[in-house]
Order: sequence, then structure tokens, then C-alpha cells
Amino acid sequence: MTADAARQILESVRNGTLDVDQAVEKLRRLPFEDLGFARLDHHRGVRTGVPEVVYCSGKTRTQVRDIVARLYEQGDAPVLATRAEPEMLDVVREAVQDTVYFDSARILVAGPERLVRKPNYDGSYVAVVSAGTADLPVADEAAVTLTYLGDRVERLYDVGVAGLHRLLGSLDLLMAARCLVVVAGMEGALPSVVGGLVGCPVVAVPTSVGYGAAFGGLASLLGMLNTCASGVAVVNIDNGFGAAVFASLVNGRGDS
Amino acid sequence: MTADAARQILESVRNGTLDVDQAVEKLRRLPFEDLGFARLDHHRGVRTGVPEVVYCSGKTRTQVRDIVARLYEQGDAPVLATRAEPEMLDVVREAVQDTVYFDSARILVAGPERLVRKPNYDGSYVAVVSAGTADLPVADEAAVTLTYLGDRVERLYDVGVAGLHRLLGSLDLLMAARCLVVVAGMEGALPSVVGGLVGCPVVAVPTSVGYGAAFGGLASLLGMLNTCASGVAVVNIDNGFGAAVFASLVNGRGDS
Amino acid sequence: MTADAARQILESVRNGTLDVDQAVEKLRRLPFEDLGFARLDHHRGVRTGVPEVVYCSGKTRTQVRDIVARLYEQGDAPVLATRAEPEMLDVVREAVQDTVYFDSARILVAGPERLVRKPNYDGSYVAVVSAGTADLPVADEAAVTLTYLGDRVERLYDVGVAGLHRLLGSLDLLMAARCLVVVAGMEGALPSVVGGLVGCPVVAVPTSVGYGAAFGGLASLLGMLNTCASGVAVVNIDNGFGAAVFASLVNGRGDS
Amino acid sequence: MTADAARQILESVRNGTLDVDQAVEKLRRLPFEDLGFARLDHHRGVRTGVPEVVYCSGKTRTQVRDIVARLYEQGDAPVLATRAEPEMLDVVREAVQDTVYFDSARILVAGPERLVRKPNYDGSYVAVVSAGTADLPVADEAAVTLTYLGDRVERLYDVGVAGLHRLLGSLDLLMAARCLVVVAGMEGALPSVVGGLVGCPVVAVPTSVGYGAAFGGLASLLGMLNTCASGVAVVNIDNGFGAAVFASLVNGRGDS
Amino acid sequence: MTADAARQILESVRNGTLDVDQAVEKLRRLPFEDLGFARLDHHRGVRTGVPEVVYCSGKTRTQVRDIVARLYEQGDAPVLATRAEPEMLDVVREAVQDTVYFDSARILVAGPERLVRKPNYDGSYVAVVSAGTADLPVADEAAVTLTYLGDRVERLYDVGVAGLHRLLGSLDLLMAARCLVVVAGMEGALPSVVGGLVGCPVVAVPTSVGYGAAFGGLASLLGMLNTCASGVAVVNIDNGFGAAVFASLVNGRGDS
Amino acid sequence: MTADAARQILESVRNGTLDVDQAVEKLRRLPFEDLGFARLDHHRGVRTGVPEVVYCSGKTRTQVRDIVARLYEQGDAPVLATRAEPEMLDVVREAVQDTVYFDSARILVAGPERLVRKPNYDGSYVAVVSAGTADLPVADEAAVTLTYLGDRVERLYDVGVAGLHRLLGSLDLLMAARCLVVVAGMEGALPSVVGGLVGCPVVAVPTSVGYGAAFGGLASLLGMLNTCASGVAVVNIDNGFGAAVFASLVNGRGDS
Amino acid sequence: MTADAARQILESVRNGTLDVDQAVEKLRRLPFEDLGFARLDHHRGVRTGVPEVVYCSGKTRTQVRDIVARLYEQGDAPVLATRAEPEMLDVVREAVQDTVYFDSARILVAGPERLVRKPNYDGSYVAVVSAGTADLPVADEAAVTLTYLGDRVERLYDVGVAGLHRLLGSLDLLMAARCLVVVAGMEGALPSVVGGLVGCPVVAVPTSVGYGAAFGGLASLLGMLNTCASGVAVVNIDNGFGAAVFASLVNGRGDS
Amino acid sequence: MTADAARQILESVRNGTLDVDQAVEKLRRLPFEDLGFARLDHHRGVRTGVPEVVYCSGKTRTQVRDIVARLYEQGDAPVLATRAEPEMLDVVREAVQDTVYFDSARILVAGPERLVRKPNYDGSYVAVVSAGTADLPVADEAAVTLTYLGDRVERLYDVGVAGLHRLLGSLDLLMAARCLVVVAGMEGALPSVVGGLVGCPVVAVPTSVGYGAAFGGLASLLGMLNTCASGVAVVNIDNGFGAAVFASLVNGRGDS
Repeated sequence: MTADAARQILESVRNGTLDVDQAVEKLRRLPFEDLGFARLDHHRGVRTGVPEVVYCSGKTRTQVRDIVARLYEQGDAPVLATRAEPEMLDVVREAVQDTVYFDSARILVAGPERLVRKPNYDGSYVAVVSAGTADLPVADEAAVTLTYLGDRVERLYDVGVAGLHRLLGSLDLLMAARCLVVVAGMEGALPSVVGGLVGCPVVAVPTSVGYGAAFGGLASLLGMLNTCASGVAVVNIDNGFGAAVFASLVNGRGDS
Repeated sequence: MTADAARQILESVRNGTLDVDQAVEKLRRLPFEDLGFARLDHHRGVRTGVPEVVYCSGKTRTQVRDIVARLYEQGDAPVLATRAEPEMLDVVREAVQDTVYFDSARILVAGPERLVRKPNYDGSYVAVVSAGTADLPVADEAAVTLTYLGDRVERLYDVGVAGLHRLLGSLDLLMAARCLVVVAGMEGALPSVVGGLVGCPVVAVPTSVGYGAAFGGLASLLGMLNTCASGVAVVNIDNGFGAAVFASLVNGRGDS
Repeated sequence: MTADAARQILESVRNGTLDVDQAVEKLRRLPFEDLGFARLDHHRGVRTGVPEVVYCSGKTRTQVRDIVARLYEQGDAPVLATRAEPEMLDVVREAVQDTVYFDSARILVAGPERLVRKPNYDGSYVAVVSAGTADLPVADEAAVTLTYLGDRVERLYDVGVAGLHRLLGSLDLLMAARCLVVVAGMEGALPSVVGGLVGCPVVAVPTSVGYGAAFGGLASLLGMLNTCASGVAVVNIDNGFGAAVFASLVNGRGDS
Repeated sequence: MTADAARQILESVRNGTLDVDQAVEKLRRLPFEDLGFARLDHHRGVRTGVPEVVYCSGKTRTQVRDIVARLYEQGDAPVLATRAEPEMLDVVREAVQDTVYFDSARILVAGPERLVRKPNYDGSYVAVVSAGTADLPVADEAAVTLTYLGDRVERLYDVGVAGLHRLLGSLDLLMAARCLVVVAGMEGALPSVVGGLVGCPVVAVPTSVGYGAAFGGLASLLGMLNTCASGVAVVNIDNGFGAAVFASLVNGRGDS
Repeated sequence: MTADAARQILESVRNGTLDVDQAVEKLRRLPFEDLGFARLDHHRGVRTGVPEVVYCSGKTRTQVRDIVARLYEQGDAPVLATRAEPEMLDVVREAVQDTVYFDSARILVAGPERLVRKPNYDGSYVAVVSAGTADLPVADEAAVTLTYLGDRVERLYDVGVAGLHRLLGSLDLLMAARCLVVVAGMEGALPSVVGGLVGCPVVAVPTSVGYGAAFGGLASLLGMLNTCASGVAVVNIDNGFGAAVFASLVNGRGDS
Repeated sequence: MTADAARQILESVRNGTLDVDQAVEKLRRLPFEDLGFARLDHHRGVRTGVPEVVYCSGKTRTQVRDIVARLYEQGDAPVLATRAEPEMLDVVREAVQDTVYFDSARILVAGPERLVRKPNYDGSYVAVVSAGTADLPVADEAAVTLTYLGDRVERLYDVGVAGLHRLLGSLDLLMAARCLVVVAGMEGALPSVVGGLVGCPVVAVPTSVGYGAAFGGLASLLGMLNTCASGVAVVNIDNGFGAAVFASLVNGRGDS
Repeated sequence: MTADAARQILESVRNGTLDVDQAVEKLRRLPFEDLGFARLDHHRGVRTGVPEVVYCSGKTRTQVRDIVARLYEQGDAPVLATRAEPEMLDVVREAVQDTVYFDSARILVAGPERLVRKPNYDGSYVAVVSAGTADLPVADEAAVTLTYLGDRVERLYDVGVAGLHRLLGSLDLLMAARCLVVVAGMEGALPSVVGGLVGCPVVAVPTSVGYGAAFGGLASLLGMLNTCASGVAVVNIDNGFGAAVFASLVNGRGDS
Repeated sequence: MTADAARQILESVRNGTLDVDQAVEKLRRLPFEDLGFARLDHHRGVRTGVPEVVYCSGKTRTQVRDIVARLYEQGDAPVLATRAEPEMLDVVREAVQDTVYFDSARILVAGPERLVRKPNYDGSYVAVVSAGTADLPVADEAAVTLTYLGDRVERLYDVGVAGLHRLLGSLDLLMAARCLVVVAGMEGALPSVVGGLVGCPVVAVPTSVGYGAAFGGLASLLGMLNTCASGVAVVNIDNGFGAAVFASLVNGRGDS
């Protein structure tokens, strides 16, 4: 992890056993990592608050357990594991007793008590807004991830565009947020409507909720990409986690 | 056009020169038209008020002129021609002097003075609602067609979902209509929002307005088909004419 | 639910403790709901006869039971639940004994005896027409929903375009309807043929019946959207429920 | 063109200057063509009556002229050139005076007087059926090609499914054909309806006629592939020529 | 089923109790079926040899059993049922003991001993050609159906284009056929290669064999539609049955 | 524009001519706009700095001129017009002399001298990063829009992933930005690579640059939506303007 | 398998019982195989080292066992079987005891001890590079196949573009390879980045790893086809086997 | 271009004015380029022989002229410019007199006389194979590029799969090549057929030749990706240039 190779070259220069031209040449040929670029990876954890997250889909329960345990032991707790089945909780607890499972969000957190609130936790917040009850898992994935990242979260669920009064009734909550995560399936119209009402960035999350010509979320994805409201950007279908990380980056600078 | 063949068979039966079994056999073998089914075609004009409409796209100016002239001479005036270029007006007037052109709707009408209002013209109406200024040609195609069919029309334009207050400010107009034609491009969210506010059928018209992932109207089409509001049905992209005919059929029974 | 906030402002005006300008300003800032816009939601039930319908897909049996029970207790009976599996019947009956299941339509109705016929039940009707036996579940979803909404329904099944004589043999039934719901999979040609024969609005429902290049209903959906018959509008693939609500809105004004 | 190489080997065997094993080995190593497989190409012209057809799309006028002239001089007249612009006629006539142009079919024929009718020309025929007037170019491409191939052709145009009586009025013509070429754009429903009425093979040709969700002929192509009628097969969008060649092969064997 | 209504009208004319004009009017108003058009349906069975075929996909075993039994009792044997699971055999035998199952073709035939060969059975034949072993079920569906329809069938399997010598080694068999059914998945190139070698119509059947960018048969479907060989037409993905019916219609006229 | 209706009701309450219950009822029935919700629209301009932007695509030069002039006269200068052809400059100058045209960005600005820098202009900035020279118009549309919105902009162009060293050479500029707008066509890989290097939100803009399987920007759009880097969100193809508005909202809160 | 038919003809020529012209004619009519073209098939095995590979997908365990056994007995060992389930190992061992299973690659090899290294095994190598852990099965399918084909393989896994330092840290390994197989799902950006760094051919393998708008690998496939790096070609989604065969052909000429 | 910054750090270390730890830290913070990674770019030209190629599509004639001139002056001649219109020749010659234009390939080369053949020019070669005459521009783009890169090229054109004898007649040419570039539109079957005949890598190039369901080259692209022949990899639609660069990399190592 230290830049030993570079250091040796430098010491040779200082000792006079290597001249400068030779040293330049040697430095050029070093593999990048030896120059210490592993710092990039470390830096990554520092800046996003997501040192390494476990995406469980396609992994066996014991694989998830082992990866979580390794990260936990490295001191990276709390460790987040997304798209986790309920049955994984018991298996992971074999390794890390202090693990909880968020049902609707399908998220495991090992070492939840180590969650530390950001300094401005009671200040700026991200609001997670969802259209229908079937969008709940994606909305909760976003909300739990935001909490894990130290952001204050407000939830406003089941405010689809076919019942506008519910949405309009919470206008104040929407307008005071630093960033919105707006989750919707079917025609995906909610980000357009919300985007026309508020003055903060809207991160739109299409979901695979729907049938027939919804084509697995394609309809809501296209709807959101073609929004007539400005101030809206889109993530992948069902990607509540990605939206949360993005929103946290928007929200985060306020407190640093 | 008359059922001469059938008549001859029947006369032979009456004269006794043909027995009943033979007559049944002969009747079965007659081409359909000879049995008078041309009534179907006639009936079509009677019921929809659209005896025959000229779709100009892909036709030359002289072809349009000749078809309009023939229909006009058959007494089918007023004759409607959709998707007409402005230059067609002068050419058609060579044949039918009494022709007007509706610019934004791209519609020619030959014999407009013969337009007769329906008995309930001041009663139930169809409202044509559109999202953006670029949707105007399609909305006007619907509105002019409805007028041509004898329906009362109210227009509510430029009320896209990114500026909800404009839409909500005309709620009364929307709620009192017998049927709505709602025209929108881009993400096509307007029918969903309108469908959640009103209690009449909403005929949604996606338009090809947009760029990039709008894919020529595919985004708004999918959005409308996946609407979370019930009471919404959809026609082809840019098909203002078809939406108007449909809406007129919904509106029409009220006065018959 | 009451407009308490608005009332307090008004009382302050009457008491002279608030002047008119201040009151206007305060009213503007109130959340919408406090101004009583919940009436919109109530209004919704009144106008469509669909106070709230349970879409079972993706819900557990106990979730369905609990939602149905809550709606039933609110007096919203009969309660309709679509896309219900047969096994849900027994579970829902734990909460509402008076529940029936419509097999082919995959619909549960809690409190069916409270179904009240519309005044004109024996008058205008909606005909549900389907192409093949595999389209039955979607056609029945439409038919049962229409009955639930108080509409008179006539069914004409298995009249696909490859056997025209069956369709033509029931022409009178088709031509006398106020509205048609036409259900077809595969190439989805039936609405075009029917639309050319009748003078009422045709609500076309593509189904996912087919294989290979049917692409889950895409072929029939595109076929219906591109119909050469005017007077046809389309709903989502397999959306018998939505077609029924739309048709009921068309049919309903006749009797009010 | 002759199998000279093979002949030389054989003569060496006869002369005793090459033994059999060596000859077998030599034969194996010969390029295919030297063994006389060019007969395949010749055979092709004999069997289909289409020795070589010029597809003009993307070729310049002089290129078309030169290719037509070369084929004409080889004695392959009449020479057919499809997708030809009207302006090509004069240019081709510079080389082959005896050339005609079929306007609606966009086909040039050099040496038309050499067209020879098949022995059974007045016997079995192919009927070309089309849905709308905009499908005319494709239908005529098929009809002119069939005539060129020596087949008897009957045309039945403008019999789209939205006006069934016209189709049913010509049932006898349809039922007596050896093969049908059925041309339709938009929803492409005509082959399904026709296929359910007749007992001969139906070659379906989707056209690019339509707009919006027709997606350049995709809608009619999918419709025809998913037909509920058996006895229907499909060619590429707008491929009137290919349908004609196929139909001629069906029709041709009867008389040979 | 008889044209009773028409007969009564005719008898009244003969009796003088109805004059000719009134009779014409009455005939026009009769439902189509009463005029005896049920003959169309009967005619269908006569012409294609496929009175009614059972498509098992999506039907329960007892439904299949009951439908097969009903058709068998009507004297329509042998009865063909396609896309049948092996387990259906025992269930169908409860109703019709004399039933066999063709494993690879997934076809049930009730009453196979009643299969009657066409007069020219030893004459013209249809060759079924397939590319890979995974295409076998579709090829066999075609071959068994052709046998059922009375056609002579020759099979040439596993001759994909990546091993041309196998195909070229059977050129004689291909060139002497009246019609070819060519079955291929993946890139679907076989019909193009075969179509360039033979002089009879080629019915191409794309299969869903493949993975990744095969997109469930889309790749082979598009390949076949865009074939550079003339004389090729295409049916739906995996539609061995439809190809067989079409090929039988091509082959059939030779012997009638 | 004033809330006159509400005021009248309130005055009646104060006067005692209307009691509170009646007033509540009346308020509920008022059209939304009368309650002053026009403030929403006003608010929109205030919050985003984009009072109303002219999208020129599909508008005539005189239409653009008139709209720009009207907005300019309302005091909304500077007025931004996107997707403007160069020829529009002279026409718009007829109405507003003080207009400039940004060539590569295809943007007109009327009243550019009124541009006011944000208080923190020399502080946090948005970096606009682009992959290839063909992406320049979209990147410049973003950069000019950001300048118009008062944001400090840094540009880093032509740093596509096929020449990583150029990108890595400017790492410091990337890592110090508050937000990145990353523009790329073809495979759209740049946002993934950048997103893995930096700790701020990345707004990805796919462009229609490319050919063949780029499908008009679909390839880069899908690439960006499926990015393996977290912290990336996507706008519509070629939507440099939308990305800029979004990035400005992210950047803007820092200084308020 | 021998060219007996050709030999007989030649012997007749030598004997004088057949003259040369007749012999030429007879040779032309021989089926291709009789002329010994089976050598093509044999040649295939020689040149690629893949005499025949078993693709297990869709085959039963006993089918796989029997095919492997037959090939093994023909002396074609080692026999490779791809896409094999773990359960197949025991079944295949019934026939060929000496069989091993490569778990992550899902590959069975019967007769592994017969694997012979190429002469230059320690010379030029193919590097298999993969983006994420979920791409492992495809990468291992490629690596095991390369080993089976006698190529030296170096693996570089988990070097996705979101963590560039890992990739850059192994630059020397990449730059010294004769050919690269680069495996990636999601946005598929890795081949573009690698292609810009190295000077050897890059065979890109998109995988179906991802969700939502990954559309089963379509996103990575399109990304790779539109790469801005030259020197990249693409195989089907998840086709590790095909990429390995291709890379082996590139690598192989070096040692022959 | 030199690593001056690194050198200064090293000299300070040697001088003792900077200790090793500080030096390591400073080195880490240097922009990448200062560490000399510009060598990557230089290396790129060395290894592929394509220092920088001008892609003319979307550039004006003067832009092309100026870029070509700059590269020429840098000594990078010959300079290749692809997708060039004929009219560009005269304009480029204003700057570089010694420029030629390859018509069918749409390629400009400035400084063609500087083309230097590879040492093994008369040894291993790449064969460019194309299916139809319309594929010529793409095939020639590949062939001219290969010549420019110093590779020996053999052309085999117009050997589409519908006329197999032409392809088989040139089998020796195909089998002796080091690499094949196979170009085809429509169904794109040629690479599959060729891939089954030869033992070298096949680089497949789909073209946009075709109409209707060719969907701009999608059909041939999918066909080639799903090839049943192993040893085939695919580049983007119409990308003759990319295929040539790839093939040159395959061919090139043999002689170095």
C-alpha cells in the first residue's frame, strides 16, 4: 500500500547510485500502483461514504456472509448489502452478530450502531418521493441508503399523479428539500410534475412496476428522460441505491 | 348497386321456374355485394358523419384535387382533407372554389358553408387539451375535425404538467366536458394528470414532439399506454384526426 | 380532513384580528389539502363508481385481505380486487365472509350483494368481443368489471378474423351497442374489422396471447394503434380492467 | 465455362499417364468451378425464369443502363429492373430502344416484346390483393413481376378490412386462385382475413405505409407474422418483387 | 346450420304471401349466418385438411382431453394437438384410447390409424431441412404435421451453414422437392443458402434457438426476412405447424 | 393575476355578509388560479434563473424573433434561445439589437450585457467534460447555459476514454469541481471512468454522435444508465441545456 | 468416406468402358460428398483444435453423457462440454471416468490428461480481462477454453473502469499479450479503455450482467460495438467460448 | 513533453533539499502527464501504424483541410481521412498537393507516396470478402485502409451466399489468408458460411445495405453476432475502417 518502489528509486538518487535521467526512466516504467495510486481507492471511500457496498444479487448466502465479514473486520463498518433476501440475515449474523435487515428496502446493515450522523443532520435533507405502493422497495432502498450515508431523509410516499391533491398537500416539504429522489413506475410522470413545482435537483428513478407495454420499466425510463421539466436527471430502472448516492453527493457539500 | 341478382332469383321462385331448394343454393353463391351489402358502406357515412376523408400524405396535388372534386360532386360536401400542404389550397380551388385551409391543422375543407351544427351544439362538448406549443398542429387537427363532425369544441392549450397551475386554473372547463382529447409529446404525462382530475373519458394523443430518447413519439405513446389513471385510451402518434372521430362518437349519442 | 386552517384564518378576519391582505397572503401559503382539496379524491369515487380498486399483482395474500377489509369497513363495498389468484379467496373470506371469486376473470368481489344496477341497466349496453379462447381472462376481466360498475354487458367471444362468418353472424348485437370492448392477441386485427362495421366507439385491448414475434403483446398493440378503421382507441396490453372503466364512462352519461 | 480441367485429368487417366489414385487426389484439389458447378448458376435462370434482375436502388442511371445493356446483349431479354426512377427510362433507351416503364410499379423492362406467356396462361392464376391506395406501388411491383415471369395475374385492389363488403364481394375471385399475394400497410390485417376465407397459400407483403407507431412497416410485419390464419407466409417490408417470385414458384409447377 | 330463415322467405314468395321487393328487403336484414355462410367454415376443413387443430399451450390437460374427445366424436379424426406435454398422453387416452404421442414434435394424434395417404403420396414431396440439433422440435412439428395432412415428407437434419459439405451432399434431394420447409435458429442463414441452390418455394422457419443477441429468435427472423435469395417466405418464430400447413397447400394442388 | 376573488370572499366575511362555513365552501370552489397560485410560475423563475427559455427547433425565424422580443420587453433579459440556426441572429436583431450568437452552442442571447455573475462566481464551479470533437455542440450548449445561469464553468474537451492520459492529466480540475457535466457519444463510457475518479455528482449527457449500432444515441444512453460508477445520473440524448440547468441547481445552493 | 464413386468412374475411363465426355457428365452429378469433400470437416478439426464441442444448454444429462462418450471413443479426447450444470459431472463419469468439472466456467472436460501444450506455450499468450466479479463465469469459460486449445492464458479479473488504478497497475501484462479477451457487463466500457492502452487485437465479450436498462446485455453489446478505440471486435453476449476460439486463432499462427 | 516536473523533484532529492518522504508525496500529486505518460499516446502511433486518422463525417471541407495539413506537417504522412466526399479532394490539395482520393472507399490519402510496405508484404495477407455490389464502399474502405497500414490485401467481391459456387470457387484464396474481413448487408449470412470453411479469424462487418426489416443494418449485425461458426467477431455496421485496423493487428505480429 505504500509507495515502496518509488521510495527505493528516490533513495538511490539521494545516495548517488542512480542519476536523475535513469530515475525518470524508471519512474515511467513503474506500474501505476507502485506510485501509490491506490490512494484513489481510499479516496473513494472518504468522499462518498460508500467504502465498498455489497450487491447481493447473484451471490450465494455464504458468499455474502464472507464478504460482509471481511469488510467488517477491515473496520469498514457499517457495511451495507443491497438486494439481499430475508434469508441472508441469519447467515450473515453467523459472522457479524450485530446485523439488521430492512425488509422493504431489501438491505442488510452489519454494524448499524456505528452509523454516525452528519454534522448538519438536522439541516438540509433529501426527500424521497414515490408514486405507488408497488414502488416502495425502490424508494426504501434509496431512503435506507441515504440514512446509511448520514443524510437526513424525509419520505413522501404514494403521491402518484392520478391523485394530485396528495402531492400538492405536501408542497412545503418538497420545496424546502436540498434534493429530491422521485421514484415511479408505469408512465413515470411524477418527476415531471414535481420538477415543475420545486427549485432543487430531482433525481428520477424509474421502476419496473407495471405490465404489458411497460416493458420492464422502459416506459417510465423514457418518460423521465423526456421530461418537459428542467432540473431532472435519471438513473437506471429500480436503482434506488444509485439515486441515493447521487443525492447524497448533492446534499453533502452543504455541511463540509 | 341494386340487388338485381337477388330479385331475379326471387322472381323465378314466384313464377315457379325455380324451386326453393335451388333458390337457397343460388343465393348462397351470389357475391356478397349483389345481396345489397353495399348498405354497409352507406351506413358508415350515416353513423359517423365521415362519409370519406382524404388523407393527403403521399398524394400529389392534382390527385388530391381530383378526389376532393369527385366527392364534392357526389354531394358529400363538406369534404375534409387532412395532412394537406398549404400549396394544395390553390390547386383544389381550381375544382371547388368554395374551399378553405386551416393552417395550423393542415386541413382543407371543400364546401365549408355546408357545415351543419348538431342539434345539441351548445350542449355537451369535447375539450381539446394540449401540453406544449409544438403540439398545436395535432391539437388543431383534432379540433377542426370535431367542428367538421358537428361537435362543440373547447380548446385548452399549453397546459403541460411542468406548470400545473395553468391546468388547475381551468379545472371547471375540464370537468364539465363530455369527453377530452389530450395531446402531448415528450414524456406524455398530461393524460395521466388530467385523467386523475376528471370523470369523463380521456382520449390521449401522443405526438412526435421531442428529440433523442423521444424516439419519434414512442416515449409519449408508452407513457400514455401505461397511465396510472383509469379512463384513458390512446390513439396512434400524431393522430389528431382519429382522436376526434372517436371523441365525436362518444359525444354523439347524447343528442340522438 | 376538514379545512380547519382555512376556517381559522376566516374567523380571524371576521374577528378583525387579521386584515384582508394578510389573510390572502396566508391562504396562498397553506398546503393544498388544508383548503379541502381532498374533495377531489371523494369526487373521484362518485364519478367513476370505482372508489378504490385493489390490484393484487405483487401483493401477498394477507396484504390483499387487509386492504380489502379496510375498504369494506369504510363502506366502499362492493370492493373489487383484480389479478387475484384463486388461493386468495379463502384468505379474504377470513375478513369478509361475503366474498366471491370470478375464476376466468381472476377477480375477487367482497360484498357482491351490494351491487346495484344502474337505472338504465336494460337500456344501453357495452359488448365485450374477443378473438380467441386464450383471450378469455382479459375479456372476462372487462366483463366482470363492467357488471361491477353497473353497466349492462353482452359478451361475444371467439369471433376471430380467421373465421369471419361467426363475427358477421352477430352483426346486430355489435351495431346496437353503445360501446365495444374488443379483445385480441396475436396480430390484433379484430378491432380493425369490427371498427369498420359499427358506428360506436371501439376500445381495443391487445393481449399477450401469442408466441415468437408476438413479443408479449407488442404485435397486437402495434396492430391496434395503426388500425385503418377510425373510431378505435387502445389501452395497455391485457388491461381488461382499464378498458371496462373507459367503456363505462362512455356508456354512463346516457342514463344520468 | 466448360470443365476443361476435369477433362484433362480424365484424358490422362485414359492415356495411362495418370493412375486412378493420383486422379482422385487431383480432382479433390480442383477449385469447385472447374468441376463445372457453374451449372448451378445456369440452372438458376432456367428454374425461376429470373436469370438476373437489376435492383436499381443506389445505382446511378448510367450504371443501370450499362448493366441492362449487357444482360440484353447476352440474350437474357426481357430484362427486368426494379425500384427504377422514371428518369431512368430515357437513359436506358440509349442502349436498348425497346424499353418500357411501368409507372406505379417503378419497373423498367428492356425487350418487353419477347415476353412469352406460359402454356397455362389462361389456367391457374395468382391474385394480387391490396388494402389501400397507398399500397399500390408494392402491389404493382408484384403484379408486373408476375406478368414478366409468365404468370396470369388478377388484381383486386383497395379491399382493406375496414370495408369488408368490398372484399367479400370478390370472394369467388379469391377462392379460385392458385396463390394469393396480399399487400397491406398500417396494421396489416388483410392477410389474416383473407387467409381465413381461402384454401390456397397466401404470400403476405407488409408495406411501409403508415405513420407514428407503424414504425416504417414494423407494425404490419409483426401483424402478418402473428396471423391467426394458417396458410400465410411473409416476405420483407415493401418486397413486392420477392412475393411475386415466390408466388410464381407456387403457381409454376402445376403446368410444367 | 341450415338456411331456414332464407327458405321461409322464399316459400312466402312462392306462396304469394310476400312480394319480391319485400323479400329483397328481408334478405338484406338477415344475420349473415342465416344465409348459410356457415358453409365457409365447412369449406375450410375440406380445403386444408385441418378441420380444427388443438393448440395445447396454456390449456390444462383435462381441457385438452375434452376438446380432443369432442372433435373425435364429431368424426374429425385424426385429431391433431400441437405443443402438447408428454403427460397429456395418458389423460387424452382416458377419452380416446387410440392416441399416440410424437415426442420430439410435441404432437398428440388421436385416431392415427385413420390417416389416409394422398393419392400422389409417392409423388411430389416436401423436404423439411434443419440447421442444428436444437431445431429438432420445430422441424419435427413441421414433419409430423405434413404427414398428418397426407403429404410425403423427406427430412434432412443438421445441415447448418457452418458445415456446407453436408448440405451440398444432399443437393439432389433438395432440388427434386416440390417445396422446402427450412428451419434454423441463431443467425438463420440456412434458407438463404438453400434458396440459392433450389428452384422450388422455400418456407423459412426461424427458431428461438440461441442466446444473448439472438433475442428469442429475433435475429434469425430478421435474417430470413432480409434474405438475398428470392423464392423465400417466412413464418413466425418456432411455427413449424404453420410452415407445414403452408407447404401442404403448395404441394397439394399437384394431386387434385 | 391578483387574488381578487379570494379577497372579495374575505371582505364579505369581515363585513359579516358571509359566515365562515359559507366562505370555506366558496373558497374550495374557486378556480386554483384565483387563489393566487400564479405565484408558482413566478417562483419558478426566481429559483432556477431560467424565467423562460426559447426552444427554437421547429419554430420559424419570425416566431423566434417575436417570442424573444416579448420576453425582452417584459424585463426577462437576458433571454436565452437554444437550438437556434445562425440565420436567426439577423432576424432577432431586428427586434433586439443587443443580441449575440454562440456558434458552436447554437444559442442566441438577447441582452447579454445584463448577465450578472453569482456572488460565488470565483468559488465553486461546474466542469463540462467532453469525449470527442463531434460532441462539441452539446458540450458548448451546456457551458453557455451555465454561464447564462451565473455559474462559473471550466471546460475540459476531447478527453475520450481511448486516450486516458489526457483525462488523467487533468485530474485536479475534475476533483475540485462542485459538479461535472460529462458529454459523450458512441459507447458513452466517459461518465463511468470519470465517476470512478471524482467525488462530486456527475451529470451524464449522451449524444447522437456515432453511426450504425449507435442508433441515434441509444448506445451511449444505455451505457450511461448502466454505469458501474455510483454518483452518475443521466439526461436525454443531446440535452446539454437540461444538464446545465441541473448542474446549476447542484452548484447554486452553495452560495445562497 | 473414401471417394469410391469418383474412383469407379475413373477406373471405367481407364478401362475404356466410359469415354471422357460421359465421365465429365457423371462427375458433375455426383453428390459433393462422394468427391471427398468430407475432408472439409476433417480439416476443421485440424485447424482449430476444436474437433467438436458439446453445447450442453437444452440437452439432458444422459444426452450429454452419450455424446461425450461417443466423441471420446472416436479418439477426439479431450472432449469439451460448455454450459454444463455441476450435476452432469457424475453422469458423464459413468461413461468416461477421467472427467473433470470447472465450476466457475461451467465446463466439463473428458480426458483432461491428454491436454497437450502448444510448442510455444511459454511464449505468446492471451490475457483474459474482466470487469466485475459477476462476469467471472464468462471470463472463466474463455480462459478454460483457451487452455484446452493449448494457448497460454493470463487472467486479470475485477479491473472495471470505475477503479482505473487497478487496470493501470497491470498495464505491462496487457501490453505484452498477443491478444486480449475483455469481458464486461453493465455499460461495457472496459474494452474501450483497454483498447486505447494496448497494441494487440481486443476481443470484446459483453455479458448479461446488470439489470433494468441493461436489457439482458444489450447495453454492453451496443457499447462495445460503438467503441471509440480501434482494434476491438465483438462476439455475442456471454459468449466466452467463441471469444476464446477467436483469440486462439489470432495467437496460433505465431507458433506454427 | 518531457517529464520536467519529475526531474526537478529528483534533482532536489539528489541535492538533499528534499527528503524522500516529501518527494514521494510530491510525486503522487503531480498531474499524470508530468510523469511522462504522454508516452502512451506516442506508443499508440508506433504500435498500430495509425498515428491519427481523420473521420470526415460532420466536418466541413476547410476543417478537414486544416487537420490534414497539420498532421502532414507534423510528419505523420501519409495521412488518412475516411468518409470523405469527392469534393474534399480539391480543397485538401490546396494544403497538400500530393493527395489522392479513393472513390469507392471514400478515402483521402495525403502523401501517398510515403506509403511503405511491411517487410512481409508478399507473405501473409488479409482477404477482404464481400457479398453484394452494394457492399463495395465498405469493403473498399477496409481494403484501402489495410494497404495504408502496410498489409498485403486480396479482394474477393460479390460472392454472396445465394450463389455459393462463386464462393467455393475461390476456396484456396480464402484458406491461405492470415485473416479475413467479410462484409455483408441484408441477412449477413456470409461470415457464417465462410467461417465454416476456413481456419483463420474472420472479422465480420455488417452493412446498412437493405431495406424494410433490415432496419439500417440491424438484421445483418444480429446475424453475424449469432453466427453458428466459431472464429468470427464483429465490428459496428459499415465500419470497414475498424475491421481493417483489427485485421492488421492480427496480421502484423507475424512479421515483427
